[in-house]
Amino acid sequence: MIQVSFPDGAVRSYENGVSALDIAKSISEGLARKVLVASVNGVVVDATRPITADAAVKFLTWEDEAGKNTFWHSTAHLMAEAVEAIFPGVKFWVGPALDKGFYYDMDLGDRKITEEDLLAIEKKMAELAKQQNPYIRTERAKQDAIHYFTEKGDQYKLDLLQNLKDGEISFYQQGAFTDLCRGPHIPHTGFIKAMKLTNIAGAYWKGDEKNKMLTRLYGVSFPSQKELDEYVAMLEEAKKRDHRKLGKELSIYTTSDDVGQGLIMWMPNGTVIIEELEKLAKETEEAAGYKRVVTPHIAKESMYVTSGHLPYYADSMFPPMEMDGERYYLKAMNCPHHHKIFDAEPKSYRDMPYRIAEYGTCYRYEQSGELFGLMRVRCLHMNDAHIYCTKEQFKAEFKAVNDMYLKYFKIFGIEKYVMRLSLHDPEKLGQKYINEPELWQETEELVRNVLIETGVPFVEVKGEGAFYGPKIDVQIWSAIGREFTLATNQVDFAQPRRFKLSFTNANNEPEIPLIIHRAPLGTHERFIGFLLEHYAGKFPTWIAPIQVKVLPISDKFMDYAYEVKNALRAKGVRVEVDDRQEKIGKKIRDTELLKIPYMLVIGEKEMTEKQVSVRRQGKGDTGSVALADFVSDIYAEIINRQS
Amino acid sequence: MIQVSFPDGAVRSYENGVSALDIAKSISEGLARKVLVASVNGVVVDATRPITADAAVKFLTWEDEAGKNTFWHSTAHLMAEAVEAIFPGVKFWVGPALDKGFYYDMDLGDRKITEEDLLAIEKKMAELAKQQNPYIRTERAKQDAIHYFTEKGDQYKLDLLQNLKDGEISFYQQGAFTDLCRGPHIPHTGFIKAMKLTNIAGAYWKGDEKNKMLTRLYGVSFPSQKELDEYVAMLEEAKKRDHRKLGKELSIYTTSDDVGQGLIMWMPNGTVIIEELEKLAKETEEAAGYKRVVTPHIAKESMYVTSGHLPYYADSMFPPMEMDGERYYLKAMNCPHHHKIFDAEPKSYRDMPYRIAEYGTCYRYEQSGELFGLMRVRCLHMNDAHIYCTKEQFKAEFKAVNDMYLKYFKIFGIEKYVMRLSLHDPEKLGQKYINEPELWQETEELVRNVLIETGVPFVEVKGEGAFYGPKIDVQIWSAIGREFTLATNQVDFAQPRRFKLSFTNANNEPEIPLIIHRAPLGTHERFIGFLLEHYAGKFPTWIAPIQVKVLPISDKFMDYAYEVKNALRAKGVRVEVDDRQEKIGKKIRDTELLKIPYMLVIGEKEMTEKQVSVRRQGKGDTGSVALADFVSDIYAEIINRQS
Repeated sequence: MIQVSFPDGAVRSYENGVSALDIAKSISEGLARKVLVASVNGVVVDATRPITADAAVKFLTWEDEAGKNTFWHSTAHLMAEAVEAIFPGVKFWVGPALDKGFYYDMDLGDRKITEEDLLAIEKKMAELAKQQNPYIRTERAKQDAIHYFTEKGDQYKLDLLQNLKDGEISFYQQGAFTDLCRGPHIPHTGFIKAMKLTNIAGAYWKGDEKNKMLTRLYGVSFPSQKELDEYVAMLEEAKKRDHRKLGKELSIYTTSDDVGQGLIMWMPNGTVIIEELEKLAKETEEAAGYKRVVTPHIAKESMYVTSGHLPYYADSMFPPMEMDGERYYLKAMNCPHHHKIFDAEPKSYRDMPYRIAEYGTCYRYEQSGELFGLMRVRCLHMNDAHIYCTKEQFKAEFKAVNDMYLKYFKIFGIEKYVMRLSLHDPEKLGQKYINEPELWQETEELVRNVLIETGVPFVEVKGEGAFYGPKIDVQIWSAIGREFTLATNQVDFAQPRRFKLSFTNANNEPEIPLIIHRAPLGTHERFIGFLLEHYAGKFPTWIAPIQVKVLPISDKFMDYAYEVKNALRAKGVRVEVDDRQEKIGKKIRDTELLKIPYMLVIGEKEMTEKQVSVRRQGKGDTGSVALADFVSDIYAEIINRQS
Repeated sequence: MIQVSFPDGAVRSYENGVSALDIAKSISEGLARKVLVASVNGVVVDATRPITADAAVKFLTWEDEAGKNTFWHSTAHLMAEAVEAIFPGVKFWVGPALDKGFYYDMDLGDRKITEEDLLAIEKKMAELAKQQNPYIRTERAKQDAIHYFTEKGDQYKLDLLQNLKDGEISFYQQGAFTDLCRGPHIPHTGFIKAMKLTNIAGAYWKGDEKNKMLTRLYGVSFPSQKELDEYVAMLEEAKKRDHRKLGKELSIYTTSDDVGQGLIMWMPNGTVIIEELEKLAKETEEAAGYKRVVTPHIAKESMYVTSGHLPYYADSMFPPMEMDGERYYLKAMNCPHHHKIFDAEPKSYRDMPYRIAEYGTCYRYEQSGELFGLMRVRCLHMNDAHIYCTKEQFKAEFKAVNDMYLKYFKIFGIEKYVMRLSLHDPEKLGQKYINEPELWQETEELVRNVLIETGVPFVEVKGEGAFYGPKIDVQIWSAIGREFTLATNQVDFAQPRRFKLSFTNANNEPEIPLIIHRAPLGTHERFIGFLLEHYAGKFPTWIAPIQVKVLPISDKFMDYAYEVKNALRAKGVRVEVDDRQEKIGKKIRDTELLKIPYMLVIGEKEMTEKQVSVRRQGKGDTGSVALADFVSDIYAEIINRQS
């Protein structure tokens, strides 16, 4: 008998060789139907693997990230089985799970996959899934594995085998399909109730353009048809709300080959949004006791050697400029410049906390293939600030930052969010992480406690901290349920030491401050990309590039139209007059396309009675009101930032 | 007899061989006493040179730039004569006039010049000046000249002679001193009534650090003692108002070796000024129909090849970054990015004029020796905008820009200014200037006419235009009379062609726009440097980093002090409380040093009667007023930007 302990602390005895799935069944059939894979002593393995010693066991289901990943990876195998059934002789390279779904790279010889083929493959997959074929693991000697794939004439798997050693080689087989695979997999194909192949793309073997182009087939799958239907509906809505499409339609931003990839140029409409966001941030930060600074976009190599960004972060930085025998780098972050400002004048405990903010523009190198609209760019305008504080002040400061996030979420109607506490990995101290094990533990504990005390939802992830301290990534969900990683909030105990920062404490001794790095509104690029999708381009009035369009029915009413415009301008409202010689129907239709919050139609009655006839975006005609009332109502709506 | 014409159009006959000075004397002795040098057929020559053919003659006095330059260059010769009298055997290199004064580089062997030596030299110069020794020009054969300086053992002048040809070699002699010199010079040393040696510095021969270090003696001179006294007083005032000194004392900005030379980091106090300037600019530009954009700080090489900045402007740009097989450059100007935004969507005559503004940050390479505080930097935040307009709109747009300058001058109390119209040089078409002779003439004429019609004071300078069109540099004088080159206003007919920009005109045909580049507030760096001197750090309330300091007499009044603070904060006033345990006298003295516009002293009486006791910067105690009245008064002062 072996002793098995569970996450709730319970310990029970089982026969040696029992599997996690057996245990689940012994608890309830309902539970067993949900178990996709299991964590045994912290290692994720097949739920069907025999357990042969005392162990801590956790069942992983669709609700767990590892459960989902395994589900999708197993679906990749199922897709491969279907492809092999339809295209005998196909050879496979690798087929990993993705954030959402999976792909498999394959060599189809001269054949091209068509849309019809996709439907046939999907159909075959559904048929094979219904067979509830188990995923069967067998361990193989290297020689044996080489023999198998040599027989099959599969140079791709033979290539993979080169880097594997005896004792770490396993095959997985379901139905008629056998693959070289580390696993783990779900118990059987029957779990996969709904699947959809989403895309066909070319991918060079091993990502090298000198190699052969393989076919990459993307798909996604779910444990129920309902979930797939919801996902497809969300994708379609997301397509309509695609920030690249809306960004163009609403004249938000543009790019140019002569400027370079991933370098956004903000057009006047986008710049209005930027200015409104900066105004909000500046007001909020000023009220919270921040001061503002402005720093250059470059610094010498020595600065980034001191900060440790060189070498830890070198791959993400732009290449240097060599000038007067020195190397200058575009800044990838604002912190080192801010540290220099902290250090420019002596500080005492009376100056702490010292909070300095800057909408700093940073440059980061991203592979050109990774660049994507406003979401992945090379030039980022960051809602940055650094708080230099004492250990005693840390908790209150960190909590104040969290409160600021919540304030913003409310303004932008963000209802679902989670904070992702990224910790260090003790095994990578001195490589990926500053080698200060005690400081890591201490600050991670501090941050965890604040999160628990403030009651913000959070998850912990090992091995994703910044190199100088633990990090909180804030994940938010848009109105249509898509997830975005928005902002970060980082604790830093390393840089103050590296930059030799200190303040004189109340005992007249030098003391090293803690630093909080924070960026609640993330970058303009990503946040405006998010807002475009979140609002489907229909911005709340306060942030809309054009807030009101005045539409005179004919030229006869042009003077009054401009009177209306001037009355609104006087209160700072962004307003335009459509003075074209067009029918009112066309004026309304054209303005609808621009998603402007208010249209004011101006005709005889309105002019005579000093009124405006109001069409509210999304609500249509809402009747006539006195001009003065409209002006005061919209002014209140704007200054209150109503959503 | 020869015919001499004058600037007023008059033509008179004179004996062949008459000099400009003779002519001046024949007009009036008073005039003759002022003539320093003359322009004969556009060439500046000694006023004593015989005129041997019909000529256009202009007398040049202290009021003319060429007059001043000659005066200072002649003083350099006078100084050399005095130095040679005191230090026989000294050898001279070159001694040019400067913007203000002159210097002469000399080899004194092992001797070092001391402060006492300077006084002795000044004394000797005054003595020699009183002798009214004429500057006598003699033309020499090259062989003759070489013989003279070989005899004298003067390797420096022999080196200069190497590059001179027979027929262009002249000597000038005054008193006991003879120099190889192209001239021209003033008639005699008696014109130099007042002189001061201002500085001793080392300077490598020919600027090459491998060569011997020569002694450089700086000086300045005037036609009256009064002018020298005023100049010295101005220099002393300027020293007190030195923007580098005030910048540090008032915590405006800092720099760091790790960031790099000429790269300003704006501290919180400086950033307040920046934000106020940007607010002013944004309000003003919005009212004038500008839209705002935001563009990255880099672009690919191809962009600057298109613009022509490469190669015309390459020396002033930072070196490239090589990335993914492409070269990226930091932008030295914002225009090309703005052109891309103009070009991002099709434009029609209805969109014109299209005005886009950005406080763009540019990077320019300046030699490290040229860098100077905020005045010469490598990173510039520019009050930039580009106006794309039709030819018909040009005049109104250009005038509106001029009016904007005048509006700003009024706000900042700038009373003396002049616009410097820089034109192209026809001889350098195709090299320094775009080779479009007709467009040059046309636009220069357009700009000149606008300047004449608006009645703004202006001067014309040939050969200083931008490579793409004529340029107006705006020169302003600070409160103590120092001159600053602030801003530019440029017409551009070349870039629209190079970028293939066009709009559809009313006849539905493509038409090329004109562009106006303008930056009335120049760069933050230079403008804030100017303001520091102009206001001696005592900023008007609206732009002062801290507007009010509340000084409670003791802790007993701390609650009321914070009540005062909160009442002011509610109206957006930048206010701090001095909550230190210090005597009120010390609090007042410390606040004086920070040049804060208002101090509010808070004691028993103030607390009981809800008053504040006001000390106005520069005026001292101005009595007690009700808190509510102070709040509304200062609010009005701030929103009206009272100076």
